[in-house]
Amino acid sequence: WVGLSIANPQVEELSKKAGLWPAPGRDYHLTRYSPLSQINTHNVKNLDLAWSFSTGVLRGHEGQPLVIGNTMYVQTAYPNIVYALDISKGNDYKILWKYVPQQDDRAVAVACCDTVMRGISYADGKIVMNTLDGHVIALDAKTGKELWKVKHADPYKGETITMAPIVAKDKVIVGISGGEFGVRGRVAAYDLNSGRRVWLCYNQGPDQDMCYGSRTPASYKGLGVNTWQGDQWKIGGATVWGWFSYDPKLNLVYYGTSNPGTWNPYIRCSASWEECQSGRYDNKWSTSIIARDADTGELVWAFQMTPFDQWDYDGVNESILLDVNVGSKKVPALIHFDRNGFAFLLNRATGELIYAKPFVYVNWAKSWDERHARDGHTFKVTKDPTKSPWKPGDNKKDVCPSAMGGKDQQPAAYSPETGLVYVPTNQWCMDYEPAETKYTEGAPYVGANVLMKFYEHKSSVHGLSKTPGHYGRIIAWDPAKGEIKCYIDEKYPTWSGVLVTKGGVGFYGTMDGWFRAFDLKTCKVLWSKKLGSGIIGNPISFEVNGKQYIAVYSGIGGWAGLPVTANLDPNDPYGGLGATNLSLELDLYRQATMSGVLYVFSLE
Amino acid sequence: WVGLSIANPQVEELSKKAGLWPAPGRDYHLTRYSPLSQINTHNVKNLDLAWSFSTGVLRGHEGQPLVIGNTMYVQTAYPNIVYALDISKGNDYKILWKYVPQQDDRAVAVACCDTVMRGISYADGKIVMNTLDGHVIALDAKTGKELWKVKHADPYKGETITMAPIVAKDKVIVGISGGEFGVRGRVAAYDLNSGRRVWLCYNQGPDQDMCYGSRTPASYKGLGVNTWQGDQWKIGGATVWGWFSYDPKLNLVYYGTSNPGTWNPYIRCSASWEECQSGRYDNKWSTSIIARDADTGELVWAFQMTPFDQWDYDGVNESILLDVNVGSKKVPALIHFDRNGFAFLLNRATGELIYAKPFVYVNWAKSWDERHARDGHTFKVTKDPTKSPWKPGDNKKDVCPSAMGGKDQQPAAYSPETGLVYVPTNQWCMDYEPAETKYTEGAPYVGANVLMKFYEHKSSVHGLSKTPGHYGRIIAWDPAKGEIKCYIDEKYPTWSGVLVTKGGVGFYGTMDGWFRAFDLKTCKVLWSKKLGSGIIGNPISFEVNGKQYIAVYSGIGGWAGLPVTANLDPNDPYGGLGATNLSLELDLYRQATMSGVLYVFSLE
Ligand SMILES: O=C(O)c1cc(C(=O)O)c2c(n1)C(=O)C(=O)c1cc(C(=O)O)[nH]c1-2
Ligand SMILES: O=C(O)c1cc(C(=O)O)c2c(n1)C(=O)C(=O)c1cc(C(=O)O)[nH]c1-2
Repeated sequence: WVGLSIANPQVEELSKKAGLWPAPGRDYHLTRYSPLSQINTHNVKNLDLAWSFSTGVLRGHEGQPLVIGNTMYVQTAYPNIVYALDISKGNDYKILWKYVPQQDDRAVAVACCDTVMRGISYADGKIVMNTLDGHVIALDAKTGKELWKVKHADPYKGETITMAPIVAKDKVIVGISGGEFGVRGRVAAYDLNSGRRVWLCYNQGPDQDMCYGSRTPASYKGLGVNTWQGDQWKIGGATVWGWFSYDPKLNLVYYGTSNPGTWNPYIRCSASWEECQSGRYDNKWSTSIIARDADTGELVWAFQMTPFDQWDYDGVNESILLDVNVGSKKVPALIHFDRNGFAFLLNRATGELIYAKPFVYVNWAKSWDERHARDGHTFKVTKDPTKSPWKPGDNKKDVCPSAMGGKDQQPAAYSPETGLVYVPTNQWCMDYEPAETKYTEGAPYVGANVLMKFYEHKSSVHGLSKTPGHYGRIIAWDPAKGEIKCYIDEKYPTWSGVLVTKGGVGFYGTMDGWFRAFDLKTCKVLWSKKLGSGIIGNPISFEVNGKQYIAVYSGIGGWAGLPVTANLDPNDPYGGLGATNLSLELDLYRQATMSGVLYVFSLE
Repeated sequence: WVGLSIANPQVEELSKKAGLWPAPGRDYHLTRYSPLSQINTHNVKNLDLAWSFSTGVLRGHEGQPLVIGNTMYVQTAYPNIVYALDISKGNDYKILWKYVPQQDDRAVAVACCDTVMRGISYADGKIVMNTLDGHVIALDAKTGKELWKVKHADPYKGETITMAPIVAKDKVIVGISGGEFGVRGRVAAYDLNSGRRVWLCYNQGPDQDMCYGSRTPASYKGLGVNTWQGDQWKIGGATVWGWFSYDPKLNLVYYGTSNPGTWNPYIRCSASWEECQSGRYDNKWSTSIIARDADTGELVWAFQMTPFDQWDYDGVNESILLDVNVGSKKVPALIHFDRNGFAFLLNRATGELIYAKPFVYVNWAKSWDERHARDGHTFKVTKDPTKSPWKPGDNKKDVCPSAMGGKDQQPAAYSPETGLVYVPTNQWCMDYEPAETKYTEGAPYVGANVLMKFYEHKSSVHGLSKTPGHYGRIIAWDPAKGEIKCYIDEKYPTWSGVLVTKGGVGFYGTMDGWFRAFDLKTCKVLWSKKLGSGIIGNPISFEVNGKQYIAVYSGIGGWAGLPVTANLDPNDPYGGLGATNLSLELDLYRQATMSGVLYVFSLE
């Protein structure tokens, strides 16, 4: 892009230019809304392949390219190669530069859920990227030259990075993965220009480790230690591998934290059932949404969604920032579709709960109500003991949603035009058996045998009944009312993000390779194309020479695709933390092939 | 396909069904002509992606799928997985079965020119395939079950297989690769039903090794030994890794043989220049077209194209069978566009030379004329000593064509509608330095330092002048007149085969990923689409539910792409037997990415 005079072209400015896709979620609010409308509900049926680019890498291709001016930045799964493509011709691309980070293969062995990477960020003429083996790297966006590279996570401790970094002002903020390895979840900020670390804040442990400050509610004091059994907070998970959003006005970054280390609840609370549910063993701040000051990392508020997690309901999914009318008041809110099956609408300034409503069939929690308990604003969920694995031998069947959640990493999208949020959901459940486990640094520390299974369920709430044999479903959620307007059922999981556009058309992909366009008002599918491999990437839209393009990666993988990409033994349905059984039910071993290809579409 | 009553549906019958692609070259004559015409010169501009299939394998994807009824059979580069796809829906595919051969990785180290495979064959309800590590395998086409598997070549001797097998009646006929490893080139036939070997014939050595018989011309006697220095015929190359054609009426299979082992000519003739050119050191039958009886393997005729090869001009390219009017007579001919830059038109019954004319710029040979020398029908080529490397220190520059030939493995196509042959050609030359080398079994035995380089050249003959900066060129060749009618210049090499169709449209791909349609009459490009990776596969056409489809693999590699797929050191331009310099001139290290994806197109 030539001529953008703003000294420090940050995402907020760039996302105003309709033809760009300057950040993972297109803007700091993670709306994944493109203001382009050349493609609309009438002509989308004429969508045609414009060009295609193979990354030269296989395994799961999550995330999305960036488009800044007439340059597209593509990133591959491990080893996380970044390509800069000159796409100014529209129907062609030319590789300007390619950056291949040197990585320690150890990372591959400790990547829980396939060697994925969810994207790169752009700021001030730099491309900022993470590597699976735990480095944060800044490149000159023009030449691909490495400007700085810092070590942020240690694969030998089971730590990796699979998330896209966010750049808030001059801070590059990054989390770590490793919740299945008993690592200690944390977030750090690095100076955009030098790579010097500016702040480091843990998500559990002593108050100062968690960067409590003057704005941190008094009621939070000590929770990072007191809600753990013994010193288990030291291997307390709460990792950060999902999406970051940022409110420049409030200067707050929002992210979620993973499961509290070992999946085996009894290791984390061997007192009575009532005590384990009392709040004493909530394992704060695992499975929480956390808001931090971008400059200092200070913890401003935190909201735990699954106290004392017994299901591996990581809370890392994206929090989309949007303003919602609550009663007569316009509230600066965020909406978060959590792994535990609840959609949470919070006031993003205070962290106050507005509502928590299921967006898929849920049976781990019988009911929930809001109480202002010790930590200020926690909803008190009433768990169903028959669906809450706890002690060894406590084998539970048909627990919904599965550990893969009502939604996993696949990001939702919000259209200000329709006012609805479009959410790719998972429709299956799980059998769960707690199992003995010991912690040794760098090795898996899970303690559960899990099987992902469909299980059919009816519900009186619109859009929560399951359709037999349909593992995926795109729902259109009214954030104000907290209800499903319409939905699209899919045979295969919808493990790809959603794109929404001003033209009234949405896009998503399926794990058996269908790439579809749908009407944002009616959820009616308008166009489909079968691509080369399952789609777990997030579609984007951009413009070159006045022509609108839609692009998406096709390359099966992620946790749901791990049995195929890691070639796990199909005779062990418990393999891949239960993902193998899902692959068997979906016949993925026969129906799926790996890939790593970007497909770009436009009107003829 | 239901209802085909013929007991033993062979290629000849199946190729009469317009909607199928039942053999590598579509028919036994290797015309690559599809009788479908829904797509024509007017509507081809509306061609659109119908669906895409990722093979899950990278490196060079040469060859082509087969389509029998509503099932497509796809094969990958090493490890040569075969997929059967149900394509009856038209816009979708479903994997029916997948066969993954177990292979010895040793083969990868001795594959001279990337881990490619040029296709599979079909006969009598069986799919017949080869593996890089030297096995011939028959599968039940319905279930993918392995019926038989025989060892045909030994990687520990430097032997591999990269060619598509041909099935003539109930014989599966296969050659071997290994000309760069001093192997002994041969062809064998295996019984289609049992896999029992029926015959084995060498291409050099004693007469009975070469399966001479009553029909073998008397003048051929002893040539397999007497035209070699000492017993070098034992490591005499003449391997068979190209295409097989078959004339059911004459019951003759036609194939070509590779270079005569070591590239270093002086090792093969250290007498005087005159003696080396006398015929005494011709190294028969290397660089030859050979016709054998399909049932017995008997050598019926052989025609050597590059006596005493000094350039690695393998003679394995396809021989397309077509009838041509010579004077007033209609002659059963074959046309063969050889690595040495000459187009040979022979009488395919007798092997008699009709003409040998350059189809690219040639300077290794000053002139040629036909003489009935000792072996009956050999053209006597007058070599240009300044372009004929021989003794150590005999470093020659700008030798044309390069060792990669005026054409390499990429197969031409013949349209009976236009009467023209459409040939993908290579437009670069080479510098060549003979070098010392010793033979050890299983190790490279080359003895030359080579650099592929463009070198611009003018010629008075239409279509032979080179266009600066254009490494590829599709020519339309009049087989009767022996001249170029029209041509299409391409910046990147045209290392993919050509498809011609009744609709008057031809298709081909380029090494920078362009897939193009052109008018068979005018050579005008009508449609282009930039795919994910360089195209070295051969386009095919087929029909499902009355709709015509065009399909091609995209996955760079082969010899020309080897530096990228084998990640050869870009600082050694002599790497990859000179291919690295070509990659540097083409900027492939930056512009190319690997892939393995089938793209299928149709009219909307
Ligand atoms: O606890 C963790 O640190 C962690 C990391 C990751 C990851 O880095 O991809 C996943 C998960 N947990 C996880 O629970 C999960 O469901 C998951 C799905 C995926 C994926 O990319 O498909 N990654 C991860
Ligand atoms: O002499 C041999 O045995 C042999 C084998 C092969 C092969 O198996 O691919 C090639 C060659 N030679 C060769 O000379 C050559 O130019 C070549 C190009 C290719 C290709 O697939 O791009 N293979 C081969």
